Amino acid sequence: MALQSCINYLMTVAQHQVHQAFSAGLEQFNITPGQYGVLGCLWEQGPCTPKEIAQILQLENSTISGVLDRMQKRGLIDRVVDPSDRRSVRVVPTEEGLALKEGVLKVIDQLNVQILEGFTQEQRAVLLDCLRQVGRVDRSGE
Amino acid sequence: MALQSCINYLMTVAQHQVHQAFSAGLEQFNITPGQYGVLGCLWEQGPCTPKEIAQILQLENSTISGVLDRMQKRGLIDRVVDPSDRRSVRVVPTEEGLALKEGVLKVIDQLNVQILEGFTQEQRAVLLDCLRQVGRVDRSGE
Repeated sequence: MALQSCINYLMTVAQHQVHQAFSAGLEQFNITPGQYGVLGCLWEQGPCTPKEIAQILQLENSTISGVLDRMQKRGLIDRVVDPSDRRSVRVVPTEEGLALKEGVLKVIDQLNVQILEGFTQEQRAVLLDCLRQVGRVDRSGE
Repeated sequence: MALQSCINYLMTVAQHQVHQAFSAGLEQFNITPGQYGVLGCLWEQGPCTPKEIAQILQLENSTISGVLDRMQKRGLIDRVVDPSDRRSVRVVPTEEGLALKEGVLKVIDQLNVQILEGFTQEQRAVLLDCLRQVGRVDRSGE
């Protein structure tokens, strides 16, 4: 099979283009697409453990701690000790991390429209379902 | 919109799963999915400049030179000076890089079947077309 028909090639270049568009769109908030991923978890689910965030974003535990370090330094999140279990750390958004929610979500909606605008409703449904299945995304969390 | 419905989230986790499967499948040849990308260019198109490879794989020029350095060290490719233009470097596969072709392409076909086996013929066609369009893949090269 030709390289340019290979699912790994097509998935990689498509992800690259989407990631570039999201990076550019989120630049005005000085956050990366990965940082939006972490904030999205916290906005939707409230305080999370680093492990819970890593599972949703499919990151290694070693990767998530670097991501959280940078976000804490940037003033977007805090790590707090769970009062009911002093060995457990929870990640919470700071005031700044909460204040970004409305503006960021508006841009996220616009980026999704922009990237999918060339497709019919049916093509979009197939694309998103296939990505969900290949990405092993648990729909119960939606 | 929910994080888990966002195109950047879905594309990133799907790409991650596909990349993991390809990494595991290519491990027996001691090459990475990115290295298969470079070899795929050379097997299909013959000698290429680093810039041509970077364009096909949508990599920055700074990234491709590191990729080529590792592949040259590993004995998969050589850089040769173009006899008709001594300022121009062309990348060619070594004997080892050529010898891998048959075995690697067989595994690439199997991995594509494996990843897409849960989908109908129509779903596959929509998925691949959407990825090609989002990834801005030029079909003329196929």
